[in-house]
Amino acid sequence: MSKNSNSRDVYINGELFQHDKALININDRGFRYGDGVFETIRVNDGNLFRFNSHLQRLESGLKAIKVDFDVSKMEASCHDLLNKNQIVNGFLRISISRGEGSLGYLPKEGNKPTIVMQTVEMGDVDNKPVDLWLSSYRKIPDICLPANIKSAQGLNSTLARMEARENKCFEALLLSVDGKICEGSSGNIFWFKGGKLYTPENNILKGVMREAVIEKSPYDVVTDDFDLDELSDAEEVFMTNVAWVIKPISSLQPEGIKWQETKVSEQMRELVL
Amino acid sequence: MSKNSNSRDVYINGELFQHDKALININDRGFRYGDGVFETIRVNDGNLFRFNSHLQRLESGLKAIKVDFDVSKMEASCHDLLNKNQIVNGFLRISISRGEGSLGYLPKEGNKPTIVMQTVEMGDVDNKPVDLWLSSYRKIPDICLPANIKSAQGLNSTLARMEARENKCFEALLLSVDGKICEGSSGNIFWFKGGKLYTPENNILKGVMREAVIEKSPYDVVTDDFDLDELSDAEEVFMTNVAWVIKPISSLQPEGIKWQETKVSEQMRELVL
Repeated sequence: MSKNSNSRDVYINGELFQHDKALININDRGFRYGDGVFETIRVNDGNLFRFNSHLQRLESGLKAIKVDFDVSKMEASCHDLLNKNQIVNGFLRISISRGEGSLGYLPKEGNKPTIVMQTVEMGDVDNKPVDLWLSSYRKIPDICLPANIKSAQGLNSTLARMEARENKCFEALLLSVDGKICEGSSGNIFWFKGGKLYTPENNILKGVMREAVIEKSPYDVVTDDFDLDELSDAEEVFMTNVAWVIKPISSLQPEGIKWQETKVSEQMRELVL
Repeated sequence: MSKNSNSRDVYINGELFQHDKALININDRGFRYGDGVFETIRVNDGNLFRFNSHLQRLESGLKAIKVDFDVSKMEASCHDLLNKNQIVNGFLRISISRGEGSLGYLPKEGNKPTIVMQTVEMGDVDNKPVDLWLSSYRKIPDICLPANIKSAQGLNSTLARMEARENKCFEALLLSVDGKICEGSSGNIFWFKGGKLYTPENNILKGVMREAVIEKSPYDVVTDDFDLDELSDAEEVFMTNVAWVIKPISSLQPEGIKWQETKVSEQMRELVL
């Protein structure tokens, strides 16, 4: 078997499947309602990047959506799959849905979750600055869905990202319902001003790369609620996620705010991995 | 083949599958992100109840989430499936996801949607009054996700309904972020007071049974934004969806507000079907 087809094997509930035979029933609540959580974990030189942070978030997400599954023994099968698929640099994606059953919203009691683990190889890394589109969609408030769980409720992010693409921008910036800066569809935002880094603290998904930036930053990091106009006199802006690592931002559209510097972005990229 | 196993055949993209072989790939964005829309259509004596209303909502939902699929030719295959599964009274569920592909939120351009059609037979109808739980979850604002599309983003409704069950209530009542009455996890709410029916108008999924009630009501129906205290002096409260038809509500908990009457509920149940 070639490396490529190998790299596409998948675990479903602990059983190995070829990628095109990795199937779930239409009655899975993951398909029916996006009723689950997931993690996308970076693999660097065969190591799972900040695995414990992902595992903790997965655990708190499962608790928040009331799915009973013990994540503490997952690490061995994660490494098994990386070995089987010969993934040295890439990503491991874990999805956990509430499992099959019940046509309506109310799940059966004692539902058996569906656990999917798959890998992809690392694509080309591109660190060129990109444009950001100020989304017409707002971030879903915590009081509706807990923001800091990586749930499979991806439509808000999907629509925001598609709208950005329609406007020739790489990524979207979403504000909260009350107008505070939250995050991108797919990553967290940081900006540099007067020797400090700033990043929103509330109503966001606290990304693992955000955590790494805060931990490794040689600059003070201020986490708080911020109005959009905080960005207008920022010296530099970048976004973070485990795929992009650090993505420099060149402008916010249609506002027309531009940033030229990428020094801190480049510096942080060296520090976080 | 027995009627029961027959009744469980499923169409996926126009191809017929036995229910337990009705599978989708793990890379379907329906499973990955709940990235799709659905309709649950009531079947009364072999007829699809208010089919055109469902079809219109499906069409506007697909437009809102930017999935390109022509729903106008679906009716024939809906009837085919009802015939094959010998469904005289029951439900037809149509799910349309954005289809397979892309690990991140941004879908490929020109994604081919996944169309799933399945049926269930009607269960026992129970018109006994039930208790409602005032949810700690608020309804997702329109500015985050359009409320009036039946998207597969079911976690807000699922968590609200589970919380109601934990509190020994049948259904949840969700308020908007700014405290207005919205709807249940699974149905619309009406109340009767001083000879008129009242129901919220904004930030709700406008159910097909809600439409039927408004159309068939012998009472004036007032649709507007309402504060929660509007319910405290209501004479009668009921909820609507295509499965329950009319579900009388006996109390709102933990508020302790109670309603005894079920006259209008009973009257409306006769009128709407």
